[in-house]
Amino acid sequence: MSFDLLQNKIREKKNPTAAGLDPRADYIPPHIREACLKEYGETLKAEAEAAYLFTCGLMDALCDIVPAVKPQSAFYEMLGWQGMEVLERTIRYAKEKNFFVILDGKRGDIGSTAEAYSAAFLGEVSVGSQTYRPFPCDALTINAYLGSDGIQPFLHDSLAHDTCFFALVKTSNASSGELQDLVAGDRLVYRVVGDLLERLGRGLEGKYGFTPLGAVVGATYPSDLHQLRRRLEHTFFLVPGYGAQGGSAADVRYAFNKLGHGAIVNSSRGIMCAWQHTGKNGLDYQDAARNAAIAMREDIRNYVTVV
Amino acid sequence: MSFDLLQNKIREKKNPTAAGLDPRADYIPPHIREACLKEYGETLKAEAEAAYLFTCGLMDALCDIVPAVKPQSAFYEMLGWQGMEVLERTIRYAKEKNFFVILDGKRGDIGSTAEAYSAAFLGEVSVGSQTYRPFPCDALTINAYLGSDGIQPFLHDSLAHDTCFFALVKTSNASSGELQDLVAGDRLVYRVVGDLLERLGRGLEGKYGFTPLGAVVGATYPSDLHQLRRRLEHTFFLVPGYGAQGGSAADVRYAFNKLGHGAIVNSSRGIMCAWQHTGKNGLDYQDAARNAAIAMREDIRNYVTVV
Repeated sequence: MSFDLLQNKIREKKNPTAAGLDPRADYIPPHIREACLKEYGETLKAEAEAAYLFTCGLMDALCDIVPAVKPQSAFYEMLGWQGMEVLERTIRYAKEKNFFVILDGKRGDIGSTAEAYSAAFLGEVSVGSQTYRPFPCDALTINAYLGSDGIQPFLHDSLAHDTCFFALVKTSNASSGELQDLVAGDRLVYRVVGDLLERLGRGLEGKYGFTPLGAVVGATYPSDLHQLRRRLEHTFFLVPGYGAQGGSAADVRYAFNKLGHGAIVNSSRGIMCAWQHTGKNGLDYQDAARNAAIAMREDIRNYVTVV
Repeated sequence: MSFDLLQNKIREKKNPTAAGLDPRADYIPPHIREACLKEYGETLKAEAEAAYLFTCGLMDALCDIVPAVKPQSAFYEMLGWQGMEVLERTIRYAKEKNFFVILDGKRGDIGSTAEAYSAAFLGEVSVGSQTYRPFPCDALTINAYLGSDGIQPFLHDSLAHDTCFFALVKTSNASSGELQDLVAGDRLVYRVVGDLLERLGRGLEGKYGFTPLGAVVGATYPSDLHQLRRRLEHTFFLVPGYGAQGGSAADVRYAFNKLGHGAIVNSSRGIMCAWQHTGKNGLDYQDAARNAAIAMREDIRNYVTVV
């Protein structure tokens, strides 16, 4: 069960955090981008190679500290197929470095289309006698607005290929309540999604008690996070919103159960962009990221002990 | 305004339908796949090139009849970056053939991530002094579960680049009601999404009265479709679910206003897989698709007159 794998990695590193890989051009140190633009010209390929060099450098600096990385698909898609080629390489590099890889793609569809997304990221694709994993992630974020038809295909591949996923439940953004906080009968909409994950996962718990159906729950609504943790006992949480978005370690502690299990907290800008605050123009981006990741780990350890 | 462009194309062809491009391996005639596997081996590249040849052949056969195509991103993503390279070429070929191109990607995120998706599909990406449109679509499907934070970036690019999008409102699948039909106060959840689109679009109507914020509304719930048409006067509808999923022409007529404007009905399998029912093993896939597209047009014309 893939959340067992993630929980094991978290326990090994005593660090329930993930480093987001959002390689926006303005997050990449100038010396890396300039070298790539010089080599490849003013092309999408140049930006994609800069993203690759930057995120590989980050992973080199973080791999003994941080158990998971979360590449954000959008920043690769905006670089065209050249970006997607680099996304594949990035995922493979992350696996080599022993990271648990969560692709943040927020995919969602039904039937054979959902099966295709699932094959792309969580399963495999057969071509004649050959089998491929196009983007070999451990986990994917999905959007469950379409209901259980849009969840089942991902669950099927998760069970077959030892992968897992996180469905959006309560997101960290300011307008998340417009739909997610609507009151339907005696439940908020986001709780309906959460309850659906628990129901579909019944009997599929791994050794730590979590099913392959995880949930995205933002750090920016700590009381919702707290209530969801108690309500969704078998659901692993991916927690965005720490740091730049305003969530604190005191907030994210509610994502964890009594053993300090069941959640991973993501930081993207706080780690990736740490070099922007040291006055060295990005030449020290690896040290800066490493120091930021250690600081985040210590910050969260003040509130959470992973048993 | 991009829905003006779509409505113009529909009026020219007197045909409010789109052909879905879902190039699953088993939808592609054997002679095309076999030739590609022979040339490229048992690789993702071979499947991607087969998808390209097949969909280009379909577009050649349909371009004087059908105003729009809807490539389904999942079937390209499952072929890795090789699939995404072919998706880009497919979109460019569709534009050459004068189709309105709706990428069915159901993307959704917030802030700078939503901006990145929007840049990929509806906007542009700058690299130094150069500007690129990575996947130059006219429209994109999006998922608005994250609220207006997840809609605004797409609206911004739609206005800047004369593109548009369709947010999922009421989908055609069996379990769509699990979340979408929840009753929140005096409104169903999907109506809250619909109302949000109308509100964000206020004042942005084009010459036919529609804003760049379209809605996906399935053909399989005709009474919901009927009510939404009356409620969302300025919202253009993309209607899946005709044909294989069970929606009829009698059902989809409710998607149109009194002038026969404001909606486009998609058929994927009905057109793409028409060759599977003629007994010629796919050698006639172009004629079969063309005949199916004409039959669909006539079927809908029995109920809808586009003024």
